[in-house]
Amino acid sequence: MSGLNVSPEIERLISLLAKLPGLGPRSARRAALDLLKKPDALMRPLSLALGEAAERISTCRICGNVDSRNPCHICTAPGRDKSIICVVQDVADLWAMERASAFKGQYHILGGTLSALDGIRPEDLNIAALIERASDPDLKEVILAMNATVDGQTTAHYITDHLSGTGVSVSRLAHGVPVGGELDYLDDGTISTAMKSRRPF
Amino acid sequence: MSGLNVSPEIERLISLLAKLPGLGPRSARRAALDLLKKPDALMRPLSLALGEAAERISTCRICGNVDSRNPCHICTAPGRDKSIICVVQDVADLWAMERASAFKGQYHILGGTLSALDGIRPEDLNIAALIERASDPDLKEVILAMNATVDGQTTAHYITDHLSGTGVSVSRLAHGVPVGGELDYLDDGTISTAMKSRRPF
Ligand SMILES: [Zn+2]
Ligand SMILES: [Zn+2]
Repeated sequence: MSGLNVSPEIERLISLLAKLPGLGPRSARRAALDLLKKPDALMRPLSLALGEAAERISTCRICGNVDSRNPCHICTAPGRDKSIICVVQDVADLWAMERASAFKGQYHILGGTLSALDGIRPEDLNIAALIERASDPDLKEVILAMNATVDGQTTAHYITDHLSGTGVSVSRLAHGVPVGGELDYLDDGTISTAMKSRRPF
Repeated sequence: MSGLNVSPEIERLISLLAKLPGLGPRSARRAALDLLKKPDALMRPLSLALGEAAERISTCRICGNVDSRNPCHICTAPGRDKSIICVVQDVADLWAMERASAFKGQYHILGGTLSALDGIRPEDLNIAALIERASDPDLKEVILAMNATVDGQTTAHYITDHLSGTGVSVSRLAHGVPVGGELDYLDDGTISTAMKSRRPF
């Protein structure tokens, strides 16, 4: 915006909305206008929801999930299998797995993948905590559910190497996940099938 | 989301974000996660910006613009021409005109167009206030800058009819080839209008 004839409150709102993934400058302006037209139905509720989330949500110290409890709902759920951990890149992938209802064990969120190009090293990811969790004698299996990308598979190999000798069996999601595909884009059936057909790594 | 293993604060944030134009359920989840990863850099500032906008921004009682002043910055700017009003459908169109720096008069925002299909009648739009503004003896011209759609042009005709007899001259934006536009991509109507309205070079 030019800044000349738009109030600074609106300018600031637009520039913050434009930082959200999926919203460019034009859609940020439209979103801001829509919010301004619905102060009570949308703008104030969203302000409150953001404020509450900022206050209450933290990163689970066990698995890396985001939740209002710490440890999170999944780590503390009595009905979930403690002998199996599904390792995912991101919380969005955990959500995708949960939507597919394909898995009733524990999770571990890496926070990304190793990447020579982007300079992401093992110590930049939540990997050390995973190796430590693997020393729990109750743990039997680790499922590597990274994206089927080069970086995802490099990360899977790295983790497999570091879990060898722990006595934990390591598996990966079945092929059926398209090469280059990202979990968060897949339909529930594909995720579910890939989970059932998982293979030793 | 299933609701089973996502905290209610996050569920609520996602469902509110999904109401923004341009964000579907998937992009709302990604936006929520991005916000959760940046509580201090993005989530709290956006919460505050929304709260401040909700408190301070109102609809200008003269022109229908949204602003922290009422009447708005544009209606009260001493340097702007009071003898000419540009009528637009939406605040987004006012912003587009201001970005183009093509106009230094006053605005009037209709809040939409007449539409038989959507049941939008004259009394649903900010038209009566425009007719009243036209009785100001200082007003010389009204520019109708509605979209070049059927509903936009129906609305322009309706307003023209109701301004006849006020002594105010009524104009509309020129139709033609957009700057940078390629003929091959334009519809026949635009090309033939541009041809009929051709100007000496
Ligand atoms: Zn957890
Ligand atoms: Zn105004």
